[in-house]
Amino acid sequence: MTEPVAAAVDSLRLVDHHVHGAASGGLDAAGFAAGLSESSWPAPAGTSHLDSQIGFAVRRWCAPVLDLPPHVDVPDYLERRRVLGPAEVTRRFLTASGIGCFLVETGYRADEILGPAEMASAASTPTEPASAEEVVRLESVAEDVAAAGTDASGFAAAFAAALDERARGAVGLKSVIAYRYGLDFDPEPPDPGEVRRAAGQWLRAGGRLTDPVLLRHLLWVGVERGLPLQFHVGYGDTDLTLHRSDPSLMTGFLRRVQDRQVPIMLLHCYPYHRTAAYLAAAFPHVYLDVGLAINYAGSRSAAVVAESLEVAPFAKVLFSSDAWGPPELHHLGALLWRRAMTELLGAWVSSGDWSSADAVRVAAMVGAGNARRVYALGER
Amino acid sequence: MTEPVAAAVDSLRLVDHHVHGAASGGLDAAGFAAGLSESSWPAPAGTSHLDSQIGFAVRRWCAPVLDLPPHVDVPDYLERRRVLGPAEVTRRFLTASGIGCFLVETGYRADEILGPAEMASAASTPTEPASAEEVVRLESVAEDVAAAGTDASGFAAAFAAALDERARGAVGLKSVIAYRYGLDFDPEPPDPGEVRRAAGQWLRAGGRLTDPVLLRHLLWVGVERGLPLQFHVGYGDTDLTLHRSDPSLMTGFLRRVQDRQVPIMLLHCYPYHRTAAYLAAAFPHVYLDVGLAINYAGSRSAAVVAESLEVAPFAKVLFSSDAWGPPELHHLGALLWRRAMTELLGAWVSSGDWSSADAVRVAAMVGAGNARRVYALGER
Amino acid sequence: MTEPVAAAVDSLRLVDHHVHGAASGGLDAAGFAAGLSESSWPAPAGTSHLDSQIGFAVRRWCAPVLDLPPHVDVPDYLERRRVLGPAEVTRRFLTASGIGCFLVETGYRADEILGPAEMASAASTPTEPASAEEVVRLESVAEDVAAAGTDASGFAAAFAAALDERARGAVGLKSVIAYRYGLDFDPEPPDPGEVRRAAGQWLRAGGRLTDPVLLRHLLWVGVERGLPLQFHVGYGDTDLTLHRSDPSLMTGFLRRVQDRQVPIMLLHCYPYHRTAAYLAAAFPHVYLDVGLAINYAGSRSAAVVAESLEVAPFAKVLFSSDAWGPPELHHLGALLWRRAMTELLGAWVSSGDWSSADAVRVAAMVGAGNARRVYALGER
Repeated sequence: MTEPVAAAVDSLRLVDHHVHGAASGGLDAAGFAAGLSESSWPAPAGTSHLDSQIGFAVRRWCAPVLDLPPHVDVPDYLERRRVLGPAEVTRRFLTASGIGCFLVETGYRADEILGPAEMASAASTPTEPASAEEVVRLESVAEDVAAAGTDASGFAAAFAAALDERARGAVGLKSVIAYRYGLDFDPEPPDPGEVRRAAGQWLRAGGRLTDPVLLRHLLWVGVERGLPLQFHVGYGDTDLTLHRSDPSLMTGFLRRVQDRQVPIMLLHCYPYHRTAAYLAAAFPHVYLDVGLAINYAGSRSAAVVAESLEVAPFAKVLFSSDAWGPPELHHLGALLWRRAMTELLGAWVSSGDWSSADAVRVAAMVGAGNARRVYALGER
Repeated sequence: MTEPVAAAVDSLRLVDHHVHGAASGGLDAAGFAAGLSESSWPAPAGTSHLDSQIGFAVRRWCAPVLDLPPHVDVPDYLERRRVLGPAEVTRRFLTASGIGCFLVETGYRADEILGPAEMASAASTPTEPASAEEVVRLESVAEDVAAAGTDASGFAAAFAAALDERARGAVGLKSVIAYRYGLDFDPEPPDPGEVRRAAGQWLRAGGRLTDPVLLRHLLWVGVERGLPLQFHVGYGDTDLTLHRSDPSLMTGFLRRVQDRQVPIMLLHCYPYHRTAAYLAAAFPHVYLDVGLAINYAGSRSAAVVAESLEVAPFAKVLFSSDAWGPPELHHLGALLWRRAMTELLGAWVSSGDWSSADAVRVAAMVGAGNARRVYALGER
Repeated sequence: MTEPVAAAVDSLRLVDHHVHGAASGGLDAAGFAAGLSESSWPAPAGTSHLDSQIGFAVRRWCAPVLDLPPHVDVPDYLERRRVLGPAEVTRRFLTASGIGCFLVETGYRADEILGPAEMASAASTPTEPASAEEVVRLESVAEDVAAAGTDASGFAAAFAAALDERARGAVGLKSVIAYRYGLDFDPEPPDPGEVRRAAGQWLRAGGRLTDPVLLRHLLWVGVERGLPLQFHVGYGDTDLTLHRSDPSLMTGFLRRVQDRQVPIMLLHCYPYHRTAAYLAAAFPHVYLDVGLAINYAGSRSAAVVAESLEVAPFAKVLFSSDAWGPPELHHLGALLWRRAMTELLGAWVSSGDWSSADAVRVAAMVGAGNARRVYALGER
C-alpha cells in the first residue's frame, strides 16, 4: 500500500531551495572531515568528526555511488575519491541526487565552490537536465560594496545599486543576521542618519559586517526587492549563539513586514524547527525547511523531518540540503529526505491516517512544488 | 496483551478539562478552513489550511461520523455537513467523542458558540448523559466590567465583585496573559495604587486588556478565589510571541503562589510541553495538558503525547481538546488522544515495561480521574 | 544481525562519569518516594511520585534484582527492601548495574550516602572489581572554606588552597552555577577586588553560596586546575529556573575558556539536550550526557538518548546515571541506557544504516571509552 508513496518520492525531481556549490577542487583527509562538520576546529586528539551520524551516513549511502561497498573505511573512501577525481565525484553525486533545480546561495567562500551554472552543468544528464538559480547573500553584497570603496554618506546608495544589480538575475535573497548578530534584532528599519553613522564606523574599522544597524538596513533594502528572503535560523557553525537564533525572536519583524508580501524562508531551524513550523502555520508569508539538520542527523533524519510536519501546513515546508563543499552533501540531503518522507508518509498511509494520493501530493509539494510556487520558478 | 488497554481507553468517559463551545451555526468553506487553523489570515494563494495534519485528520476520522468514506474531498465533506445541518453535525461529533464532562471556557467569542448547558445537552444520549461546567476567563470579566462602566478608583472593587459573581458557578478560572503580555510577567502582585493608575489609563484608552499591571492584578484576585487557575501556554494564535509563552518564564509566580494551594493548569504547552512536564514534576500545584497540539499534530499526536509523559508524574497530566467552533475538533481531540494513549501504553505493555493494570489505571487518571480530583467535580 | 550489538552493550563495563553515592542507610516509604522525584515536596493528596515513568521502571526492572516479580506493588517492594537490609540492597543493585567505574560527585548531602571507596567496594565482585574516583563540587569546597572561617581578603587564597587539596585526588570538578544563579552568567572572570567584596558580603550574610561573582570566581579557579569541569545543565530539582539552565546561555564562557584545553562536561541537559549536542559538535572541548533524564523518562529513555545522538559526534557523548540515594537509580541508569542503545543502534544496524562493527564501537565509546579518555582514567 505504501509502494506508490515510495515510488513517487524516489522519482521526484527535487528543487533544493537553499544550497551552495560543490567543492571545485579535490579534498584531502582534513578538508573532507572539515566539510562534514560545522565545527571550526579539528576533532580532539584520538577522535574524528567522521564518527558521527553524518560520517556514518556518507560511508553508508555515498560509498556505493563511488562503486564502494557500504560502510567502507574512510581511507579507502578517500583513496577512491582521489582516483576518480573531483569532477567525476561531483558529477556522480549531483546526478545521483535527483535534484532538478538548485537555488544556489553564492555568498560564502564562493571561490572554493562551483557557481550556479557549473552546478547545473554537473548535475545534468542527457535525459535529465538540471537547472540552477542564484540566491544572493545580503551581507556579501554589502562587504563587496565596502571592498570596492565607498564612504559613510555613499554607502546606502552604493549598496542599493549593487543589490539591484545582483538581484536582477536572482530568485531570492539571504540574510545571515543570525550569525552576525542574532534574530533578536530590532524589528524597525533604521533611519538614514543611523545607517550613515553605522556605515562610517564600519568602513573605518573594516572586517566583517556585524553592526546591527547595518544588518537591519540590509534586510529592509532586501524586503523592497520583493524576492523571497531566506534567513539562517538555528544550528550552524561556531559563529552562532544558538539561543539567539530562535526564530520566535524575530516575530516582531515578521509582523512588521507582513504587508510587503515577501515570503520569509526560515532555513534549517534545528532545534527550533517546531517553533519555525508554528510561525509558518501562523503567518501566511512564513515558510521553513529542516535542511542541514537532515544531513547531520543521518539515521535520525526522519525524526527531525517528522517534527517539522506537525503543525506547519504542508504548503509551507520545503526541501533543502544546505550542502556546501563535498558533493556527498548534495546527494545525502536528497537521499535522506526521500528516505524520511517515504518512511513517514508510508507509515501514515499504512495506518490509514492518510490516503496514498494525499501522501504523493504532499511529497511533491514539499520536494518541489512549494519552491516552484514561492520562487516563481515556472515563470522565469 | 494490549487489548485490555485498547478496550479501557476506548470506553473511557473523558473529562475535557479545557474546551470551548461548538459553533452554534453552520460554517461555510472559509469559516471551516479558518476553524482548523490558528492563523488569523487565509492561506496564501494556491494553498489551503486544510493541507495539514489537522485537515487530513478531519477528512480521515470525522468523515465516517457523517457517513462519508475516509479521506473524502473537502467539497463533498462540506456539502454533507450542509445537508445534515449544524445541530445534527454537532450532535454526532459530541456524542461520538465519548466525552462525559466538558469544562467550558466561555470567554472567547461566546456569542458564536454553544454555552455549557447547550454543550451538555448536545453531547448527551439517552444512555450516556454528559455534563458541563464553566471555566471563567479573567480578562473577559475585566473587559465586561470596563464595558459596563467603572472608573480608575472603582475598577478593583467592581472586578472583584464581578468575578465573585461569575466564579460562583464555575469550576476554574483562566488567564490569557501569555497572549496579552507574555509569561515573563512580574511575579509579585501589584499594589492598589498601581492598579488604580493602570485601570485609569486602560479605561481612558479602551480596547483589549493588555496592561501587565492589570493582567497581574487579575491573576492575584483569581488566586484568592481558590479555584484551579488555567494558563494558556505555548502554541496558539497569532497574537502570541512564542518564546514569551515558555512556562519556565513564570517559575517565579509558581513559587510565589505555592502556599495558596491553588492548582495551576498549564494548557497546550507545545512546543514547551517538556518544560511544562518538568514544572509539573517539580511543583505539587502544577499540572499540564497537550490539548490543541494533539489536534494540530494529527498523525503525529502520539509523539507529542509521548513527550508529555516523560518526566511528569501521571497524576499531573490531563486530557483536553481545546476545541473551539467546528465540533469536529471536540471529537478529534478525544479520538487522537485515545489513539495516542492506546499506541503508547500498548507498546509499553507489549515490551513488558508496564503492567497492563498500570496502563489502564494511568489512562483513566489522565483521561478523567485527575480532572475530577483537581476540579473537585465529584463534590459538586 | 543486531545480536552482536545487544551482546556488546550488555557486556560493557560502564564508566558512570557523573554519579553520587548510594544511600548509606535504609529508606522508609516517604524517603523512597522522595528519592525517586526531583520535587522538594510530597505529591499532592491522593497521588504518588511513584506513579511515574521512574516509579514504574523501578517496579519493573529493580524488583527482579530483589527476587520479586516485575511490577510488584510498592508496599511489597519496600517490605522486601527492609528484609534484605540496605547493605544487601545496595550490593545487589551496584553489582547488577555492570558499572565498572564510578566518578562520584561528593558535594551534595555527602553524610547520607556512600563515599567513593565504599561505592567501589559495594559494586565489586570477586571476578569483577569496580573502582571509583572523585569529582569535587566547587561550591561545596567554597562553603567548607567559609564554614572553617575566613574573611573577605583571605577567601580567595583559602579557596585556592582548599581546592588544590581537594582536587589532588580528584578526576574532575563540578559546578552547580545553574542552580545557584543560572547559565546566563557573565563569561569574564571577576577581578580580585570584586571577589573580595563579594566574599565579604557572603561571609557576613552566611547561607548557601549564590553570589554570581563568587560563583564565576570558582569556575575560573577551577579552570586553572586543568581537570574536566562538569556543569549541571537543564532539568533538576526545584531550586532551578529551567530556561536559565539552557546551555546555549554559557556559549560566551565556552568560547572564553576554549584555549585552556579543559573539557567542559554538560550534564543531563534535558530538555536542552539537542542544544547541548550542538555545542558538543561545535566546540572541541564540549561534551554531554543525558543522565538523570534517562532514569526519569523510564520507558521513554530511548527517545531521549536518540535525540542526544543526532548532531553530537559520538566521541562527545558520555554515559552517566546521576544517581543519588536509592541504589535502584544506579542500576536503572545503566539498564535503561543499555536498553536504549541496544534498541537504537540495533535498529540502525537492522535497517542497514550502520554497520554492526560501528555500532559496537560507538556503544563502547559512549559507555566507557570517552570517559576513560577525557578523564585520563587509564593513566591513574
